[in-house]
Amino acid sequence: MAKTVMMLPVLMSFLLLPFSSMALTQDFCVADLSCSDTPAGYPCKASVGAGDFYYHGLAAAGNTSNLIKAAVTPAFVGQFPGVNGLGISAARLDIAVGGVIPLHTHPAASELLFVIEGTIAAGLISSSSNTVFTKTLYAGDIMVFPQGLLHYQYNAGPSTAVALVAFSGPNPGLQITDYALFANNLPSAIVEKVTFLDDAQVKKLKSVLGGSG
Amino acid sequence: MAKTVMMLPVLMSFLLLPFSSMALTQDFCVADLSCSDTPAGYPCKASVGAGDFYYHGLAAAGNTSNLIKAAVTPAFVGQFPGVNGLGISAARLDIAVGGVIPLHTHPAASELLFVIEGTIAAGLISSSSNTVFTKTLYAGDIMVFPQGLLHYQYNAGPSTAVALVAFSGPNPGLQITDYALFANNLPSAIVEKVTFLDDAQVKKLKSVLGGSG
Amino acid sequence: MAKTVMMLPVLMSFLLLPFSSMALTQDFCVADLSCSDTPAGYPCKASVGAGDFYYHGLAAAGNTSNLIKAAVTPAFVGQFPGVNGLGISAARLDIAVGGVIPLHTHPAASELLFVIEGTIAAGLISSSSNTVFTKTLYAGDIMVFPQGLLHYQYNAGPSTAVALVAFSGPNPGLQITDYALFANNLPSAIVEKVTFLDDAQVKKLKSVLGGSG
Amino acid sequence: MAKTVMMLPVLMSFLLLPFSSMALTQDFCVADLSCSDTPAGYPCKASVGAGDFYYHGLAAAGNTSNLIKAAVTPAFVGQFPGVNGLGISAARLDIAVGGVIPLHTHPAASELLFVIEGTIAAGLISSSSNTVFTKTLYAGDIMVFPQGLLHYQYNAGPSTAVALVAFSGPNPGLQITDYALFANNLPSAIVEKVTFLDDAQVKKLKSVLGGSG
Amino acid sequence: MAKTVMMLPVLMSFLLLPFSSMALTQDFCVADLSCSDTPAGYPCKASVGAGDFYYHGLAAAGNTSNLIKAAVTPAFVGQFPGVNGLGISAARLDIAVGGVIPLHTHPAASELLFVIEGTIAAGLISSSSNTVFTKTLYAGDIMVFPQGLLHYQYNAGPSTAVALVAFSGPNPGLQITDYALFANNLPSAIVEKVTFLDDAQVKKLKSVLGGSG
Amino acid sequence: MAKTVMMLPVLMSFLLLPFSSMALTQDFCVADLSCSDTPAGYPCKASVGAGDFYYHGLAAAGNTSNLIKAAVTPAFVGQFPGVNGLGISAARLDIAVGGVIPLHTHPAASELLFVIEGTIAAGLISSSSNTVFTKTLYAGDIMVFPQGLLHYQYNAGPSTAVALVAFSGPNPGLQITDYALFANNLPSAIVEKVTFLDDAQVKKLKSVLGGSG
Repeated sequence: MAKTVMMLPVLMSFLLLPFSSMALTQDFCVADLSCSDTPAGYPCKASVGAGDFYYHGLAAAGNTSNLIKAAVTPAFVGQFPGVNGLGISAARLDIAVGGVIPLHTHPAASELLFVIEGTIAAGLISSSSNTVFTKTLYAGDIMVFPQGLLHYQYNAGPSTAVALVAFSGPNPGLQITDYALFANNLPSAIVEKVTFLDDAQVKKLKSVLGGSG
Repeated sequence: MAKTVMMLPVLMSFLLLPFSSMALTQDFCVADLSCSDTPAGYPCKASVGAGDFYYHGLAAAGNTSNLIKAAVTPAFVGQFPGVNGLGISAARLDIAVGGVIPLHTHPAASELLFVIEGTIAAGLISSSSNTVFTKTLYAGDIMVFPQGLLHYQYNAGPSTAVALVAFSGPNPGLQITDYALFANNLPSAIVEKVTFLDDAQVKKLKSVLGGSG
Repeated sequence: MAKTVMMLPVLMSFLLLPFSSMALTQDFCVADLSCSDTPAGYPCKASVGAGDFYYHGLAAAGNTSNLIKAAVTPAFVGQFPGVNGLGISAARLDIAVGGVIPLHTHPAASELLFVIEGTIAAGLISSSSNTVFTKTLYAGDIMVFPQGLLHYQYNAGPSTAVALVAFSGPNPGLQITDYALFANNLPSAIVEKVTFLDDAQVKKLKSVLGGSG
Repeated sequence: MAKTVMMLPVLMSFLLLPFSSMALTQDFCVADLSCSDTPAGYPCKASVGAGDFYYHGLAAAGNTSNLIKAAVTPAFVGQFPGVNGLGISAARLDIAVGGVIPLHTHPAASELLFVIEGTIAAGLISSSSNTVFTKTLYAGDIMVFPQGLLHYQYNAGPSTAVALVAFSGPNPGLQITDYALFANNLPSAIVEKVTFLDDAQVKKLKSVLGGSG
Repeated sequence: MAKTVMMLPVLMSFLLLPFSSMALTQDFCVADLSCSDTPAGYPCKASVGAGDFYYHGLAAAGNTSNLIKAAVTPAFVGQFPGVNGLGISAARLDIAVGGVIPLHTHPAASELLFVIEGTIAAGLISSSSNTVFTKTLYAGDIMVFPQGLLHYQYNAGPSTAVALVAFSGPNPGLQITDYALFANNLPSAIVEKVTFLDDAQVKKLKSVLGGSG
Repeated sequence: MAKTVMMLPVLMSFLLLPFSSMALTQDFCVADLSCSDTPAGYPCKASVGAGDFYYHGLAAAGNTSNLIKAAVTPAFVGQFPGVNGLGISAARLDIAVGGVIPLHTHPAASELLFVIEGTIAAGLISSSSNTVFTKTLYAGDIMVFPQGLLHYQYNAGPSTAVALVAFSGPNPGLQITDYALFANNLPSAIVEKVTFLDDAQVKKLKSVLGGSG
């Protein structure tokens, strides 16, 4: 054993030497958000600490004192640079009684939802046959929503619902159908042409969602 | 030169031998549609001929004698098994005067549209800021629609428009928002809850698009 | 408006026809676990229902009445076939007071941990410089562990800790260092040679973990 | 309904707030060609408009007043920065009577060819068995050429042929065999050694294609 | 310590139980060559042993008693099923004095060459500018050839050269330009049209390489 | 023939013109190590020469005059920038009599080992069942180690062993278990908690490997 003990300092210097120049090894690539993004994510931050792998922003409930009675708190690469390049991110959903996360897609990731408390009704719609898949989820249940497919969640119980959602990418995107249609300057006539919605309906929602045209 | 000519028959036998057992090389993987699909595409067909790389189904105009005055003719892996595993597919759009390809997404591919004849107005909507990007396209123009984002096309000219669209995957999917909302059994009350559309509007479109609930 | 209503039944038949043969569209690919796996995941199940996107197995606490006082309950593709091909999966950690998830890696995915209740001390070790990154995590905190890097979690509080972990792949794998070294028939002499552990230490842990040699 | 209308302004402010900081969402990544490329494509341009998704450069026929009587007009990322990161690009082929696109490969993408007008004879050669797959293509026909395999196209009809080609990547590359062999300073002796071509043949083509050595 | 020893049997049973059903974990996916290939590789073999990770076929020199005085011995997935899904494979090159590996590409992988003995002259040609990059390599030198680009190797020394080549995929493919042009039934007139080679040259090489037409 | 010769200068000018602006084609992307890394690798160097595809650093034996009697000489992207973006890299192992490459993983690549001379005993351990797969390898044998799995190599013969190892990525990483545990400031109490090693064992190895705590 003494022999082993003696040899190990040499081992150490041996091992440290050839790899001391390997600071390039890409174990991880914490985003340097001050740089331009690339199709594969942000350039890597030079100096990394434990805090880069940690995010506190999902700990507090989001403010559901609004009329949809819901809040989405993201931990995407923009908020949590440590997920850059790792193929994963998260968000917290707080949905008060009667609240709803409106119909939406994530263009760049699949979603896995875990109910922490309360009751959530969720649904997704397939693209090929427009088939609807719905489930009522209770604390501890999980449901998966494939990338790019329309889905929704709403509180189906008598108390606030809280969920953690994880995504299969660091920047999943979120396209809420109502906002894409009504919260911008896309002319009403075009919205009507491409959706078959009535003019009055389009103008009403454009008005309340702040759209013009 | 004579020497070279003499050596080449030997070259041939040399080269053919070691590689004669390389029928496994995956230059391509024409889909065997009789097998189950996998996340990376269909298993490969055993025997392949020139016809497997060729598809005639886009040569004829689609039938636009319907009220949207448009036709989409796909050459996805289901119709054109040769694109399996190659990261590409195509479709033909025929849009008569006044016709429209309603608001939709492709969950699994980006799209590149090339106008063959006529005039097409197209738009896409970003997810982050709901910004609308629109262009009027003439013969020879191309436009690109990023994966998963809502977009539409309609005939903006005085004659039939024809376009070839290419996709960055063999099975891009097509989710038409109206059909996802109104052409199935998703209850009207839920549609209204997750879209803020009026009950009368939902019921009208459900009725005409064949939905129930 | 009557005109629109009239045209829509035609739209419906138009749209349904060209796409009625598109059952091939790969919106999702629920695993058919009766088939052989492939490098990209399992072949797709033919008939899919809402239950395929849902998993109840994480709802109940795992049994921590063991001496590590912890339980890992996986929702990988083997338990939850709906995640096949979607780049995501999950697991539930229950760690009683004093409990520990021993040092391990996930060879095939990055991990994102969300603390549901209690206090968890976690650490990860970089490969290039052997730097340790540690954090004490409270309810609502998240931490990310890059693919393939050694990490651990233990209960650092006075009550049971519960966490949801999400992975960037449907089958992340789990290689617990102690089990890889001591819970099989790898001869002690080899373990000692490749780890510099003492013979007595190796034999003790081999004995308690059920290894031989 | 009035209730719904009232609640929506709040919805809007709710939704806009948490996501107003999400300019990071990578719906798309229009290339900033002033930056260095990366293995996944160019860094993203900061400010994007509708023009970034549009390209007019394929609208005009290429100049076929040359002796190969053909023109290739690319819309790769270098010409059309909007395709950066989207896995797709395009080019226009104009082939006059008697014209030819010489034998070549695309090292970085598969190709899908759509004949717009005229008649094109095309062929591809598999790597494993040197099997030739040929087709004569007419207006509306498509053919797919797998990544990296040698292929060619020539005008096989009595009038100019025009085709749109789409690629499964934003920067497919184009390696014309003749140019790789004869249009550079690779010494003739080496060309002969690695191709078995005669010295006179190599020197003749080197001369006409501008090569030296 | 006694306490630790006592607790560990429980640990073992705890750990073994939840994961004993995890035979699904895809640590590796040794090819079952009796199944059809897929775009991501072969389905996984059910029962795996140490021999599946091992291949002896590169140990013996290939037979260079032919006129190109060279041999290529592959260890691709077809010969070495253990590399399936792992993104890597290998081959052995034996090149006698005067021998040559003719101009070729690998459509599906990059190549890294390591010279074991002798002297090898190698070159690669870029697609964009037809630039030639050449090097004379001695024992211990490595050179990399990017995916899909034309390259060659020949013995440039006074003794046999041996090299190990590794590929960035399990099935790189090998397209030898001469064989693609002359060792099949592609008509001479077409070869001439798409390469500008003289008729006599094409017919001579077709004859010696066994092609027809 | 004269006609062909005459037409070719025109061909040349034709071909060179449209592609002369295609310096953007990404045939390769030699790393510019002066830039920040990204998740897909380093930005591309502007000016590339033959030397960028070549590396001499594996030609000389590493220094095994240390007590593990072994040396690892990497040719990863940090040493050999030409492999950037190409999905491959290499290293040389020199293992003197009695030498060992201790238990380790590569978090970011699979490994293929080729024995150049001598005898190497190697083993890998699966994650699902802790199964050990071992082989004794002689000159010319190859073995593959799947990404992220623990493995080791040691000299099992009477003379120095030399091996070339290739990796399925340009920056595979190297996490030596002993160093991750003992060569840093991770407190001994935590090491013991997460590995079940005895305090004396941990402190001894921490001491000899330079760790603290």
